[in-house]
Amino acid sequence: MNDMMPHWLTQQAFLSPNVTAIELENGNQITFSELKQRSQEMAYQIATYGIHEGDHVAILSKNDPKMIITIHALSYLGATVVLLNTRLTPSELQYQINDANVSLLIYHDDFNDKVKQLFIKDSLSFVELKSLSMSTEVTLKKEIRLSDPFTIIYTSGTTGFPKGVIHTYGNHWWSAISSALNIGLSKTDKWLAVLPFFHVGGLSIFLKSVIYGMPVYLMEKFNVSKVNQAIVENQVTMISVVTVMLQRLMEQLGDNRYPDTFRGMLLGGGPASKQLLEQAKQKNIPVFQSYGMTETSSQIVTLSAHDALRKIGSSGKPLLPAQIKIHRETSDGIGEIYVKGPMVTNGYYNNDKANEELFEHGWLKTGDLGRIDKEGFLYVVDRRNDLIISGGENIYPTEIEHVLERISHIREVAVVGKKDDTWGEVPVAYVVCDTETLTEDNIIDYAKRHLASYKVPKQIIFLDELPRNASNKILRHELKALLQAKK
Amino acid sequence: MNDMMPHWLTQQAFLSPNVTAIELENGNQITFSELKQRSQEMAYQIATYGIHEGDHVAILSKNDPKMIITIHALSYLGATVVLLNTRLTPSELQYQINDANVSLLIYHDDFNDKVKQLFIKDSLSFVELKSLSMSTEVTLKKEIRLSDPFTIIYTSGTTGFPKGVIHTYGNHWWSAISSALNIGLSKTDKWLAVLPFFHVGGLSIFLKSVIYGMPVYLMEKFNVSKVNQAIVENQVTMISVVTVMLQRLMEQLGDNRYPDTFRGMLLGGGPASKQLLEQAKQKNIPVFQSYGMTETSSQIVTLSAHDALRKIGSSGKPLLPAQIKIHRETSDGIGEIYVKGPMVTNGYYNNDKANEELFEHGWLKTGDLGRIDKEGFLYVVDRRNDLIISGGENIYPTEIEHVLERISHIREVAVVGKKDDTWGEVPVAYVVCDTETLTEDNIIDYAKRHLASYKVPKQIIFLDELPRNASNKILRHELKALLQAKK
Repeated sequence: MNDMMPHWLTQQAFLSPNVTAIELENGNQITFSELKQRSQEMAYQIATYGIHEGDHVAILSKNDPKMIITIHALSYLGATVVLLNTRLTPSELQYQINDANVSLLIYHDDFNDKVKQLFIKDSLSFVELKSLSMSTEVTLKKEIRLSDPFTIIYTSGTTGFPKGVIHTYGNHWWSAISSALNIGLSKTDKWLAVLPFFHVGGLSIFLKSVIYGMPVYLMEKFNVSKVNQAIVENQVTMISVVTVMLQRLMEQLGDNRYPDTFRGMLLGGGPASKQLLEQAKQKNIPVFQSYGMTETSSQIVTLSAHDALRKIGSSGKPLLPAQIKIHRETSDGIGEIYVKGPMVTNGYYNNDKANEELFEHGWLKTGDLGRIDKEGFLYVVDRRNDLIISGGENIYPTEIEHVLERISHIREVAVVGKKDDTWGEVPVAYVVCDTETLTEDNIIDYAKRHLASYKVPKQIIFLDELPRNASNKILRHELKALLQAKK
Repeated sequence: MNDMMPHWLTQQAFLSPNVTAIELENGNQITFSELKQRSQEMAYQIATYGIHEGDHVAILSKNDPKMIITIHALSYLGATVVLLNTRLTPSELQYQINDANVSLLIYHDDFNDKVKQLFIKDSLSFVELKSLSMSTEVTLKKEIRLSDPFTIIYTSGTTGFPKGVIHTYGNHWWSAISSALNIGLSKTDKWLAVLPFFHVGGLSIFLKSVIYGMPVYLMEKFNVSKVNQAIVENQVTMISVVTVMLQRLMEQLGDNRYPDTFRGMLLGGGPASKQLLEQAKQKNIPVFQSYGMTETSSQIVTLSAHDALRKIGSSGKPLLPAQIKIHRETSDGIGEIYVKGPMVTNGYYNNDKANEELFEHGWLKTGDLGRIDKEGFLYVVDRRNDLIISGGENIYPTEIEHVLERISHIREVAVVGKKDDTWGEVPVAYVVCDTETLTEDNIIDYAKRHLASYKVPKQIIFLDELPRNASNKILRHELKALLQAKK
C-alpha cells in the first residue's frame, strides 16, 4: 500500500489549481489545473491509437510544453515513455525505437523529415494530435504505483550500443524528494529548464514541478542573455546547467550580480575550476556541483555551495537516501564508484546481459573512477575506460586536462592515450584555443611545471572543436582513432 | 531495493556532523554527530540486556533528550519502540506492556515509583543505563528498511481497550516528507518540540529532525512565556501545538507580534475559531490547522495559513501522497472520513479483529464524521460515536459547542446526548466558565438565537473542569455516565 499515491499531476491540480506549472518565454503561463486538463485531453486523444497500459510510446521533441503535456498524458494511460534525443541520426533513432519495442512515436513537427526516414508502426505529430477526437473507452490512471516503469532513456553511447535505462515512478519521485532534502523547498521557488528535456536532468525539473507544486520557466534553447534576464528580472530561483553554460552566463553578466532571491545553480557534467567557483561567488551565484548519470535519475551526489571553495574538484556527498563507495581502491584510494539508493534504476530494458554486469550486491557499478576523502566527499577521477596506463603508472586524463585548462586562451582540452612501443601508452592532448600565438612548446612547458613527467602530454594537437556526441560528451574513442590514423 | 536507505541518523551525522540536532532550554546543544555517537553507545549498552532485532522495548519518559537517544539506540538494534504515555495509571501501563509483548522497559527515573508497581521481565532506568558497559557482540544497523516496524503507540482509549498502532520506518518517513512538501523546507528551520514525545505528534518532530538535518528546540513542559521567548528571540521557525496552547501564547504575547522568521504554527486537536485565527493573523502567526491521528503518523490533512480565514472550521486538504474521501454521505454531504496514503499504518499490533474492521479496499476508516466542500477542503464534523440522534435528526455536538464557546466567560463546553423517552436523545451541555454570573437561562437563550430548536441543549451543567484522559481528550462517555447517575 505504501507503493501507491494519487497521480501527481491530478493531486497537484487539486492542491494548487491556480499555481503556475509552466511559464513560457513569451510570458504565457499554464497552471496546474490547465496542465492536468490538457494532459488528460491528450491522453484521451492518444488512446484512439489503441495505446494501453504497458505500451511503449516514444517522444521526439525539442524543448516544448507539448512535450511535457505528452509525457503526463502517457502517464495517465499507464504507457511507458521512451525519450529520444533529437540530435541522433535516423539510424541511431531506429536502433532505439526497435530496441525499446516502441508501438507509437509522437513527435514535434520540426522533425518531420527525420521521422519520414524511420520504420515505425504508428507515428503522430503534435499538429496531427491537435485534431484527433477523444476516446471514450479508456479510464485514466487515478493513482501511481511507484514500482511501475515511467520512462526509458538511452544512455549516450560513447562506447558500444546504447542501453535503455528504465526509470520507475519511484526513481523519479525519490530523485525529486532527495533534491528537496538537499537544497530545501520554498513556495517562491521557480526552476529554469533549458537542458534538453529528453535527458533525465531536463525531464526531472518537470517532475519536481508536479511533485513540489513549483513553476518551471521553460526555455527552448540556451540563450545567455535570456537566462540571465530570467534570473535577474523574472524571479527564477534555481537552474540546472553544465559548466560551459555557467562560464558563459558569468561572462555575459559582467560586473552585475545575481539577486539574493536566486537560490542555486545545479551544475552537472564534471567539476568546475577554482577560478570559476571564485568568480561565481563574487557574482552571488551559489553553485551546487553534482555527480549523476541517467542510471541515477539525475544527481545522486551534490556539493553544497557552502563547501564549494573548500572542496575544489569534489562532487560532494550523496543525497540523504543514497550511498556511495569505492570498489577495489588502489594505494592512492582510487577505485570504481559504486552507488546505491532508491533513485537508482533497477536496470536496462530488455538487456539481461548488461543488467547482470550492472549490479553487485545491490550496488550499481558506475564504471567511473573516483576517491572519497576523509570527510566523505567524492572526487570523480575519470571515466574508467579513459584510463591511460603508461609504464605501469595510472594516468587519469582529467587531471592533465584540468592543468592545461588553466592556460589562458585554452578553451577546451581532451587527453587520450596513444599507443607507444616503450611505455604501452602515452598521453596526448587535443586542444581548442582562441588564439594563434599559443604553441605546442608553450603548453608542454607549462605542463612540465605542474605535472609529474610521465603525465606530461607527449604531443599537443590543435583542433577547431572537439568531437562530441548528441549528448555533448566528448568522443574520446574518435580522438583515439584519429591518433591511430595519423600515425 | 527501493525499500532500503542508510540509517537516517548515521547518514545525517555524515552529511551534517556539526549541525545542531537538539537544542536544550539551558542552551546546551547536541550535534548530529554527537547524537549518533550517544545513540550508538546506548545501543551497545542496551544490547547487554540481550535485545535483538524484532524485540519490543518500551520507553516511559517525560520530554527529555535521553528519550530521543533511546529511540535512536533501539532503532540501531532493530528493536521496535513501544512509547508509553506517562499519564497512564499503572494498570493501564500494564495492559499495554502485556499487549505489546514488551521484553524490556526503559524509563526515566522520575517514574521509578510507577515502574515498581509493574510486572515486567526487565526494566532499566536512564540512571542505571549510564553505568552499563557496552556489548561487543552486536552489529548495529547500517541501513533502514522502510517496511520494517519502528514504533508502537497506543491510541488513547476514549472507548474500549487501547490498540497498539504500528508505525513502520516508511510511515514516519512519508509523514516527514509529506509535511516538507506541504510547508517547505529551509536550512534555517528550527522546530520547537513541547507536545509529549510519546505521542506521534511530538515524536514526529525528532524524526523530521534526522531526515531534514534540522535542529529541534526541546522543551520539557509547555511554558507560555518560554515558548514565546524561543520564537521571538531564539529563531524557532516552527512549532506544533493544540488550540488551547495557541490561545495562551497569544494572550501572553499581548500587543507583540511574531518575527517574520517564524514560518508556522501547526495546530492539531480540532479546528480553531474565526476569532482565534483573526487574532493570530494580527500577531503575524501563520496557523496551519491539521487533521490526523496516531494511525496516520501525525497530520494527513492540513489547511494552509493562506486559506485559514477563507475556510473557517476546515482542516484543509490532504498532503500530496495522501487521499481522503467521505463514505456513505448523507444528503447533507456528511459521512465517515476514509483516508489513504503511505503514512497510514498497516494495522494494530496483534489485533486481527480490529485490523479487519480498520480497512476497506485499502482505505482506513477513521470513525470520524466529516464532509468535503466543492474545492476539496475537509470539515471534520464529529467523532462518529459522539453523534446524537434526536427525533430522527442528526445532531453533531461540535456544532453546538462552537456556538456556546462564543459566549463570553465560557472557557470550555462539551455536549453529549441524554436519553429521552420522547425524542430518543436530547443534547445536554457541560460548561466550564470563569464567572459566577452566567446562568443556565442566559446560555439557553443564546443557544436559541443561534441554533435550530432541536439543537438547543435541554440542560446546562456547570463543572470546574471537564474530565479528560491522559491524552487530553474529553471523556464524553464519563459525561454521559454522569448524566445517567444524576437522573
